[in-house]
Amino acid sequence: MLTLHQMQVSGNCYKVRLAARQLGVPLTLFDYGLHDGTTRKPAYLAKNPNGRVPMLEFEDGRLLPESNAILWYLAEGTPLLPADRWGRAEALQWMFFEQYSHEPYVAVARFWLKFAPAAELEPRRHLVPEWHAKGNAALAVMQTHLDDHDWFAGGRYSIADIALYGYTHVAADGGFDLSAYPAVVAWLKRVAAQPGHVTIEERW
Amino acid sequence: MLTLHQMQVSGNCYKVRLAARQLGVPLTLFDYGLHDGTTRKPAYLAKNPNGRVPMLEFEDGRLLPESNAILWYLAEGTPLLPADRWGRAEALQWMFFEQYSHEPYVAVARFWLKFAPAAELEPRRHLVPEWHAKGNAALAVMQTHLDDHDWFAGGRYSIADIALYGYTHVAADGGFDLSAYPAVVAWLKRVAAQPGHVTIEERW
Repeated sequence: MLTLHQMQVSGNCYKVRLAARQLGVPLTLFDYGLHDGTTRKPAYLAKNPNGRVPMLEFEDGRLLPESNAILWYLAEGTPLLPADRWGRAEALQWMFFEQYSHEPYVAVARFWLKFAPAAELEPRRHLVPEWHAKGNAALAVMQTHLDDHDWFAGGRYSIADIALYGYTHVAADGGFDLSAYPAVVAWLKRVAAQPGHVTIEERW
Repeated sequence: MLTLHQMQVSGNCYKVRLAARQLGVPLTLFDYGLHDGTTRKPAYLAKNPNGRVPMLEFEDGRLLPESNAILWYLAEGTPLLPADRWGRAEALQWMFFEQYSHEPYVAVARFWLKFAPAAELEPRRHLVPEWHAKGNAALAVMQTHLDDHDWFAGGRYSIADIALYGYTHVAADGGFDLSAYPAVVAWLKRVAAQPGHVTIEERW
């Protein structure tokens, strides 16, 4: 049995639960608090020196951090990973876009505006306009792609869609207005209609 | 012939030149200036709505942005990509680490401190300590791994090493002192000693 070290509300962790559920891969969930700092303490850092969740732990002790690397590992050889070289390149293009141009603004705005104590948000409040500008730029790039594609890679639902769905579907938590991106809203509905879909609230 | 849309001094673009050279894949280089804003103008945005280099252009018109997705595409089926599922997961773990936890600090500090006009750096100078703290944290994570591994993935030189080499080997440009990370310095030398290595200054 694989163990997922995770925080339930994290979109990065949700990606892994969603893919594992749709692939029929059972996971044991090991939960960490959002605010207790456990993932930055020595016991956790000994497993992942980068101090982040999600991290997948195998029965033989191997450890795999990074949400999108975990998605790739789980999806290899399944319909969630494009079967051709170009489709795999497209999937990675969007998964790197997600981690570099989307998550640092859409997910970060959500964390600070929805989950952080007010006293910790206050010294960062001047950053909100930048998070919104750059997050909206990422949503506009998605909208441009979805204007003439149903999916992000390989012409079908894949881990690239799961990676981008993780935080896009809860972007409103960070103060983003998705009604400006109708193709994104329509894609969110297509993702949520896939067989075996689970919400961010559900356990494995 | 593949065309690489690039900036010569960009570590992200250098990664692609280095891998292509070691794989014997010829590239035509199409250069953009660091400061002229051409990649944010409509003609370029029509090709890559995210407005970034590198971008690989195929003879048939297909376009592939994101440095690490390009590395993956070029390396599939070659010794630069681990041949087993676990090795591929390790490679992606480090490539996502590079784009999320390393590049936004190590590369960004280099850009602003070495290449930006002084008047543009000034309003950002208060960010330098954060870039250095987070960039040093990433270098420390690399050091921990390299304390007991020669390479980042699959037990041999791969695109994970190329991805991390791109900006680590020029980290001093951003004010980082690599002498605090002896295992990183030794790894940089191993990478530079690989057959077919080229420097960031060399054209294809």
